[in-house]
Amino acid sequence: MNDYKTRMDTYRQEVEAYLNGCFTDASLPQKTVLDAMRYSLLAGGKRIRPVLLLEFCRLCGRDYHTALPFAAAIEMVHTYSLIHDDLPCMDNDDYRRGRLTNHKVFGEAMAVLAGDALLTAAFDTAAHADAEPSTVVKVLGILADAAGEKGMVGGQVLDLEGENANLRADDVYTIHMLKTSKLIEAACCMGAAAGGANDEQMQAARVYAQALGLAFQVRDDMLDVLGDAAKMGKATGMDTNKSTFVSLYGVGECSRIIEQQTARAVDALACFDDRDFLTQTAKMLAFREY
Amino acid sequence: MNDYKTRMDTYRQEVEAYLNGCFTDASLPQKTVLDAMRYSLLAGGKRIRPVLLLEFCRLCGRDYHTALPFAAAIEMVHTYSLIHDDLPCMDNDDYRRGRLTNHKVFGEAMAVLAGDALLTAAFDTAAHADAEPSTVVKVLGILADAAGEKGMVGGQVLDLEGENANLRADDVYTIHMLKTSKLIEAACCMGAAAGGANDEQMQAARVYAQALGLAFQVRDDMLDVLGDAAKMGKATGMDTNKSTFVSLYGVGECSRIIEQQTARAVDALACFDDRDFLTQTAKMLAFREY
Repeated sequence: MNDYKTRMDTYRQEVEAYLNGCFTDASLPQKTVLDAMRYSLLAGGKRIRPVLLLEFCRLCGRDYHTALPFAAAIEMVHTYSLIHDDLPCMDNDDYRRGRLTNHKVFGEAMAVLAGDALLTAAFDTAAHADAEPSTVVKVLGILADAAGEKGMVGGQVLDLEGENANLRADDVYTIHMLKTSKLIEAACCMGAAAGGANDEQMQAARVYAQALGLAFQVRDDMLDVLGDAAKMGKATGMDTNKSTFVSLYGVGECSRIIEQQTARAVDALACFDDRDFLTQTAKMLAFREY
Repeated sequence: MNDYKTRMDTYRQEVEAYLNGCFTDASLPQKTVLDAMRYSLLAGGKRIRPVLLLEFCRLCGRDYHTALPFAAAIEMVHTYSLIHDDLPCMDNDDYRRGRLTNHKVFGEAMAVLAGDALLTAAFDTAAHADAEPSTVVKVLGILADAAGEKGMVGGQVLDLEGENANLRADDVYTIHMLKTSKLIEAACCMGAAAGGANDEQMQAARVYAQALGLAFQVRDDMLDVLGDAAKMGKATGMDTNKSTFVSLYGVGECSRIIEQQTARAVDALACFDDRDFLTQTAKMLAFREY
């Protein structure tokens, strides 16, 4: 457990330091957008996707430091998606992680542009990573596939269109899979690719991520019903006009799904000897309290 | 002249065909966003950036067909920037190229997401190009550098902040350089990189593009004052609350700048034997009537 905490803290600190070094060029006149980008990027996220990415790189056999630009890239994509999701024309949220949302501080236009710039910077950062070009191209391809209209953006589209509708379980699953799991899957697969994974390792990363992504999102739906608003730093009960796993299955069945998917995630790691960290991370995320 | 037209038509048709093959997967439930992406992507743009990209690839010695994914990528970036620029929180435009703007047809949320998806798809398309990984990484890096907070997005930020302000000539130059010229420069340099350019050729592409970009934008400011709204398919005289080259220098001096920069663009091509197409393209863009 102590080893676990040490490794988690190390990953987070290195990611934090890397991100904190971004968008600091004081000579640029467009300082406002840099401030807006950093406001959301350095807002104290849990850095789950970067952590998973770095650990898969390490497990597949390469120094995880070489994957730091990729870890930063996926956190930039995640952050941009939060900024745009919070916009008045989308979910219209005023708070995120206990702070005012980006457009509440910088205005709507700047929030759109900060999101655009973070998305672009993700690919810029990854493209300039100090790694083999073939690795960079593979990692970039995984990220772009997962983030675009076939993945995360597609999920947000379905989520918006599904508001106030009675969705079937399949639809809710598809939305969550695209909107949340795809980027978690990308994190794990990017890390595996950065680590020079063979096919078996890449497949393990994919299955682990898909199961973890589902457990993570079901837990999110449960926390939205059960969670404590103060602890979560955002409004809870916001999803009452949406079909969720909880509204479809009830809390008891959701708990069962989470256990089942967590077990599936852990089983997927069989090809790795040193799988304690990812095992504990899956459990930590699936059973988190806030 | 006939050769010129044939080559231009060929490039445009091949780019059009490539773009028309994108975002057509009928099996995806998130069909609305695909429709929104295609609505703006296939709205009859002049495809200037793709044309420049393909020609520089050819001039530097490689089959320009290998660069079609890169040409599509830069047009996707250009298109996303138009969609987001037109949003109510930005320039709030109702018409673009003679048609309703994206958010007027699909709503604001979908327009934000269609833009996000096009930007992501640009990198996805480029990352999956059938070219050497080292070429792909170079091309991607040029595109991301030019499109982000240091380039095009930064220019839009300064443009927004400069509204209703009395800008100095330097500021207006910086805004145009970032907002318009950077992406034209990226097009030329991406084409050169795709064509395996040496340092001299890459530098020629850069200078040509910078001069052309400036001429292009000064001409844009002039057309905004002088142009015919019906021909341009968009509202003219929209920039009256902005400092422009025309408001700073007057029409006569603007004409002189355009001639000077066009000559500079043409001179930059000295290292290429077969430079007629790019010479004519520079003149066509700098002296266009609408």
